[in-house]
Amino acid sequence: MVHDSRSRRKTPARKKQEKENKLRYIPLGGLGEIGKNMYALEYGNSILIVDCGLMFPDDEMLGIDFVIPDISYLEENQEKIVGIIVTHGHEDHIGALPFVLPKIPAPLYGTKLTLGMVNNKLTEWAPNFAPDYREIKAGDRVEMGPFKVRFIAVCHSIPDGVGLAVETPVGTVVHTGDFKLDPTPIDGRLTDYAAFAEEGRKGVLLLLSDSTNVEREGFTESELVLSGTLDRIFRQYRTKRMVIASFASNLHRVQQVIDAAGRFNRKIAFVGRSMIKNVELSRELGYLHVDEKNIVPIEDIGKVSPGSLVVMTTGSQGEPFSGLVLMSKGEHRLLTLGDKDVVALFATPIPGNEKMVSGTINRLFALGCEVVYEKDRDIHVSGHAARDELRLMLNMVQPKYFVPVHGEYRHLVRHAQLAREMGVAARNAYVLVNGDVLTMDPNKATTKDHVQAGGIMVDGLALGELQGSILKERKELAEDGAVVVSLILSPEGDLLAPPQFESRGFIHLEDAAKLREELTRSVEKIVDSMGGKAAADLPLLETKIKARMRDSLRRYGRSKPAILPIITVVGGASAGGGTAVQAGQGRKRRS
Amino acid sequence: MVHDSRSRRKTPARKKQEKENKLRYIPLGGLGEIGKNMYALEYGNSILIVDCGLMFPDDEMLGIDFVIPDISYLEENQEKIVGIIVTHGHEDHIGALPFVLPKIPAPLYGTKLTLGMVNNKLTEWAPNFAPDYREIKAGDRVEMGPFKVRFIAVCHSIPDGVGLAVETPVGTVVHTGDFKLDPTPIDGRLTDYAAFAEEGRKGVLLLLSDSTNVEREGFTESELVLSGTLDRIFRQYRTKRMVIASFASNLHRVQQVIDAAGRFNRKIAFVGRSMIKNVELSRELGYLHVDEKNIVPIEDIGKVSPGSLVVMTTGSQGEPFSGLVLMSKGEHRLLTLGDKDVVALFATPIPGNEKMVSGTINRLFALGCEVVYEKDRDIHVSGHAARDELRLMLNMVQPKYFVPVHGEYRHLVRHAQLAREMGVAARNAYVLVNGDVLTMDPNKATTKDHVQAGGIMVDGLALGELQGSILKERKELAEDGAVVVSLILSPEGDLLAPPQFESRGFIHLEDAAKLREELTRSVEKIVDSMGGKAAADLPLLETKIKARMRDSLRRYGRSKPAILPIITVVGGASAGGGTAVQAGQGRKRRS
Repeated sequence: MVHDSRSRRKTPARKKQEKENKLRYIPLGGLGEIGKNMYALEYGNSILIVDCGLMFPDDEMLGIDFVIPDISYLEENQEKIVGIIVTHGHEDHIGALPFVLPKIPAPLYGTKLTLGMVNNKLTEWAPNFAPDYREIKAGDRVEMGPFKVRFIAVCHSIPDGVGLAVETPVGTVVHTGDFKLDPTPIDGRLTDYAAFAEEGRKGVLLLLSDSTNVEREGFTESELVLSGTLDRIFRQYRTKRMVIASFASNLHRVQQVIDAAGRFNRKIAFVGRSMIKNVELSRELGYLHVDEKNIVPIEDIGKVSPGSLVVMTTGSQGEPFSGLVLMSKGEHRLLTLGDKDVVALFATPIPGNEKMVSGTINRLFALGCEVVYEKDRDIHVSGHAARDELRLMLNMVQPKYFVPVHGEYRHLVRHAQLAREMGVAARNAYVLVNGDVLTMDPNKATTKDHVQAGGIMVDGLALGELQGSILKERKELAEDGAVVVSLILSPEGDLLAPPQFESRGFIHLEDAAKLREELTRSVEKIVDSMGGKAAADLPLLETKIKARMRDSLRRYGRSKPAILPIITVVGGASAGGGTAVQAGQGRKRRS
Repeated sequence: MVHDSRSRRKTPARKKQEKENKLRYIPLGGLGEIGKNMYALEYGNSILIVDCGLMFPDDEMLGIDFVIPDISYLEENQEKIVGIIVTHGHEDHIGALPFVLPKIPAPLYGTKLTLGMVNNKLTEWAPNFAPDYREIKAGDRVEMGPFKVRFIAVCHSIPDGVGLAVETPVGTVVHTGDFKLDPTPIDGRLTDYAAFAEEGRKGVLLLLSDSTNVEREGFTESELVLSGTLDRIFRQYRTKRMVIASFASNLHRVQQVIDAAGRFNRKIAFVGRSMIKNVELSRELGYLHVDEKNIVPIEDIGKVSPGSLVVMTTGSQGEPFSGLVLMSKGEHRLLTLGDKDVVALFATPIPGNEKMVSGTINRLFALGCEVVYEKDRDIHVSGHAARDELRLMLNMVQPKYFVPVHGEYRHLVRHAQLAREMGVAARNAYVLVNGDVLTMDPNKATTKDHVQAGGIMVDGLALGELQGSILKERKELAEDGAVVVSLILSPEGDLLAPPQFESRGFIHLEDAAKLREELTRSVEKIVDSMGGKAAADLPLLETKIKARMRDSLRRYGRSKPAILPIITVVGGASAGGGTAVQAGQGRKRRS
């Protein structure tokens, strides 16, 4: 468990009085990082939660599947929670729900598509939990305790996203959600400028705004530009089979591929678990429009000529077991690519994925495919607002206080600078990190308070609170491997058998007779030199063995495998009887 | 050791005859990858080697420091080697020399600066080896066996680089080296268009050309544009201390920072081991011009006011122990950064380094620094030619055969396509991989032959031929850690002590009493069930223990740590006597 624990204390009475008249904005994830978005608004005895996302691990986090927010503060204040809102269906906004929701069960508000995606996720990961869904749509207003929430339509790279205007007793909080101001959205659902502007006119206490693209000048292009690119590629490669990879959740893009396939009389096949699942869900809910007769089950693609087929797949980020990556490795069960194929990656690599994407493209070229990728024009547009859009949002909402959200630290700094340029008072634009608390009323805001926040690493399918020391050990094992040595001693300190060695991730000792001999001699010498004390002071013996083996190994190749001695003392006269003394219990763990 | 071993056989007589009249181009590194550049030209009984670089490892290569080319082919044909040429001083062209040169000692040709850098490297890594340096300069012509080599000046992101024109009995091979056509190079040393064009006019059999930037349209900008950026930043932050990070080997850029410091009356301090070393070497050899009185030793920077100082440091790629990274973590011995500092990263991240660079920038912002980085304009220019320059080179040289070099597979494919567009016959543009052999004379070329090639992974400071299985084990250990179990049996198959467990990178078993108990019971049951056979068939016992422990662990948390049983059979009646049977010898390694 990694966390910033910086809670401070005041007298309960003073604290209570202050809290009652003030609104608290408490980010628990998403500030100083892109991922695991989650925050709370607290007023008096009520807490409203917005989003509950996960983050994918750094390369440093060996064996970790993902990271979710530390919700200690919410668990301690569970009775106050009046509701949880999810703004859209991306993993970094809903992905932690299967782990978090059962711990803080509360009504869950979201649009139809978003709740549909949440439900798929809960059904798979928390099948025994019965969620209390409250479906809303953009434009709705819902009271949750002292909070009057207005849901505002926003465009993003997934349909049915919302921003929020939350009226509280001390003023209104506007949250943009993940947004862009796409002038020509694929589904015709514009970001509701009027609603944001109306809130601005009435007066906004606090604006929380998406910082992802604050480093990009201008306006983010419309999703619609990809239609032109699709037409160009379809025209250029009329006789080839077309394989298009993109994000499974970007249903706007999937719709554009479906429409382009229609224009060029191609059938479409969907590949990849999440692609198939999302297409199914969104067709069912009416977010995706495709004629059944134009869909080819993947098993039947052999029956369609290359020039009459489009395969829509996952894997645009080079994800290890995605459709496209399996194809690029020649490991896909049903699809074999070659020089009859054009593969188009309709996505740019998310930071950190560059090498995986690059490797996938190289393999596709090596198979003989033609490949269309990020070095070509108009192959991807972002789902997040660029600087001119952020300026527009600031101008429409004109908040008193401003907190940039959804960004790495540099994005937050740049966005706060932008807000100041746009007229927010310098001291009223706050760069916060997770766990900071912004306490405010119309006259004053402070950031003195803090709550516990951070990341819980999830390893395997269990919700593990993995200790830093275990990750550190994994890193050491990864770098240099491990050598295990087993010693069996009599109570008098004599070796009852030659020491045994076993190595992993290090030179196999059966292949390195000389090293093995040297290690054996080293260990035997140590035991001899300690005499009767060897069996009496096992921690000392262990320390000495480690030091001596480390020396031998360093001379051999300057590698530093972890050394794990296991020492057993087998009881005296009747060895067969099983009277034994266990060792290793008093041992301290060293790294 | 990873290699493509695809050598094929012909009758020796036929092979010999063919070889005698033909030229062979044999890439041993750098094709299908950016890194470890190395190739051989073979004619009759002579081999000329060009470059000898290393490659930095993938994330997958746990614990590996770098990768060097497999030179088996050259070791087998050592007596044929007439010389080794290094084209410039970058790691991917000279970095493998300390490991390779002692194995195939031969005269080493390079320009003054390049040999200076090689010498620094050999002095550190192979102090006992006496290299046979042959200093050349651009314009020189040198005969090496049947090869007449002309050295041609090229611009690159390090001074004193050369391309080659190698006259052979069957025709001329032109090798661009790493190049760009910078119209205004900092040192005034232009790429020698005339020489390339002259070779083209005389007729070129084979062109080997740098493919790094084939995906970029247009011309690569001149290094000189950074001077404008430096002026802009120096003007904007007159009172702040300036910290500039870039590549230690890009001495053009270091010179520009020195010059800008001079224009704005700032002193300069150099930080970072490789920066200091390269500055020293290139001042000594006359490649860098800086007045001694304008240099401040890092220990004295406290005596200079912030507005009068520039610190030039390494770390623009977020390298773990570089100057800038230490500063960003507040761990630099002599420099503490804060809101009085502007940090400028004059470099874009090399693919794979994005996250490290991003983390460094975030930490600098968190320290309160102003940061100028890749999202700003004109902060980096590439050292490699873009498409228009590659076109120009093809037009000047007009080769019969073309092999794109220095690129990932996709770059090679794109560059071959470009060459075809520029008039190289479709079948004469070859996409080769390391180990392929292009055998040619003026009439015909074939790619039927292959030699052993690949990567040797260097682990620690030793030249290890690390097996794939060891890397695979490291990966497993990194993901899930390991659990060791030690068993001591009597010859009758009775446990002489309770089984002992030890874990690393997995839940510490002393903290998980229940799991520990379950594992103990599982192991005891297995031993019981085998009865007398336990001590007699150790491989079977080991297999059973692994399977049972795996089951128990899966139920516990779905993790899959590596399981390492160590079984010792201690001999019967006189346990104290040390007569023992070693186990584990017949064991097969499973993963």
